[in-house]
Amino acid sequence: MPAIAYVNGKFFPIEDAVVSVEDRGFQLGDGIYEVLRTYRGRLHAVEEHMRRLFRSLDAIGLKHSFTAAGLEGIIVEAVKRAGFADSLVYLQITRGATKRAKEFPKDTEPTLVITVRKLELPSAAMREQGVAILTADDIRWQRCDIKTVCLLPNVLVSQQAKAAGCFEALFVEKDGTINECASANIFIVAAGVVATPPLGLRILSGITREEVIALAHKNGVPMQERRVTLDELLAADEVFLTGTTVEVLSIVKVNDRPVGAGKPGLVTQQLHELFRGLAG
Amino acid sequence: MPAIAYVNGKFFPIEDAVVSVEDRGFQLGDGIYEVLRTYRGRLHAVEEHMRRLFRSLDAIGLKHSFTAAGLEGIIVEAVKRAGFADSLVYLQITRGATKRAKEFPKDTEPTLVITVRKLELPSAAMREQGVAILTADDIRWQRCDIKTVCLLPNVLVSQQAKAAGCFEALFVEKDGTINECASANIFIVAAGVVATPPLGLRILSGITREEVIALAHKNGVPMQERRVTLDELLAADEVFLTGTTVEVLSIVKVNDRPVGAGKPGLVTQQLHELFRGLAG
Repeated sequence: MPAIAYVNGKFFPIEDAVVSVEDRGFQLGDGIYEVLRTYRGRLHAVEEHMRRLFRSLDAIGLKHSFTAAGLEGIIVEAVKRAGFADSLVYLQITRGATKRAKEFPKDTEPTLVITVRKLELPSAAMREQGVAILTADDIRWQRCDIKTVCLLPNVLVSQQAKAAGCFEALFVEKDGTINECASANIFIVAAGVVATPPLGLRILSGITREEVIALAHKNGVPMQERRVTLDELLAADEVFLTGTTVEVLSIVKVNDRPVGAGKPGLVTQQLHELFRGLAG
Repeated sequence: MPAIAYVNGKFFPIEDAVVSVEDRGFQLGDGIYEVLRTYRGRLHAVEEHMRRLFRSLDAIGLKHSFTAAGLEGIIVEAVKRAGFADSLVYLQITRGATKRAKEFPKDTEPTLVITVRKLELPSAAMREQGVAILTADDIRWQRCDIKTVCLLPNVLVSQQAKAAGCFEALFVEKDGTINECASANIFIVAAGVVATPPLGLRILSGITREEVIALAHKNGVPMQERRVTLDELLAADEVFLTGTTVEVLSIVKVNDRPVGAGKPGLVTQQLHELFRGLAG
């Protein structure tokens, strides 16, 4: 089956799906998005993704008449039409297409795009051996809590990471505070205690992040949401990422320095198993 | 005549011009742009715009085979086809359309979009009476010197300005340093001396800004490029904007406080006349 796209009411083969060159998503980055996945055909955490989506729409003042049920219905239909065993669902809403001007347009309908592609997961080798990350200055804007399509800083650090043979890039403040990766949240484990940066303007509220925190609390794994520094991360026993497609993924190298024993750790593995029990 | 668009080698009526939903401009803000205008059909400062365009492409590592002469040829053809007395030309280049991933794609051709619309200028009333601006926290990323399409912060402050009955929003740092407006550079005049913030990571190098600075130097108008604070701006005799469509435009109100005598000032008018002599 081919990848498909839905644009403003119609389904298309993905290669035929288009938006206006004057769409405000294309010209102004004036839009927000979500990425969801299925497990054996069923959407995971769709309510949480919808809640975050509507928060993003509110945060940028995008007026619309979408409902969670309506969007979920379209996503389910799109997933069914694509027919993959497991799907990666990308959903984007912009402030619509109209003559370019920075202020909000009047009477312009939002653009809704949904694409469904075959889900690609981390390889078995990445799961068994863990991955490397690169640290980078956090040069992003002040509202990283909004899931907007203005992702050029994330693009640039992701490319730096890839060029350095790394899987991800970690945004670090000038004072050494770690925030999050370009596409995932970050956790450390030290002396059996798990810690991750708290929510705020520098962090996107990851759905998997929330799930892992809740699972830890439920299963007696000590878990803190608090400021974490790069020094702590470099000295940690284990480090891991969370995200919709990576789930819980061990980081074994940071800027060419091994983390702990240089291989996936037990707490990370335990949390990943708990997550697979929830979602898998 | 209708507005037209050029997309990757072909001309279209603007309403038929589209890009892929997987264009990296639409999904990732992974692109740069320029806005040019004509005076009586002739492109203004095209060399300077092309120089800045190629600087932007370099700054985001966008590989391409465009040349200034090649792009200028397409722009000239687009302006001719549109046939307006005076045209606003918008040019955008993105890293192309391909399956979404943050790192740079391999073997993907960039997307080139050019639109030509009828130029709309500030009204006679705005010229005669001047305009109001609103100040806003500068929440943008750290590389405001690159002319990227990740413009959501500019969109949000432009809307705030419009809602407050203002023409523009001025980005101000926490320490009171003023940077630039959402779509224009800013200048103050105090005791006959003109001052504007210096180039750096918080300022886009405006073409009109450079032209006005050069005109001032050439015509014996005292001109400084230096840090300017909000307090200085509020106490200034005159304040003005520079930009491709506004040219030199008087600001007579900042957050409801009148600037100087509350009407366009003489130094601003002199610089606008010099600019019209150059460009008009």
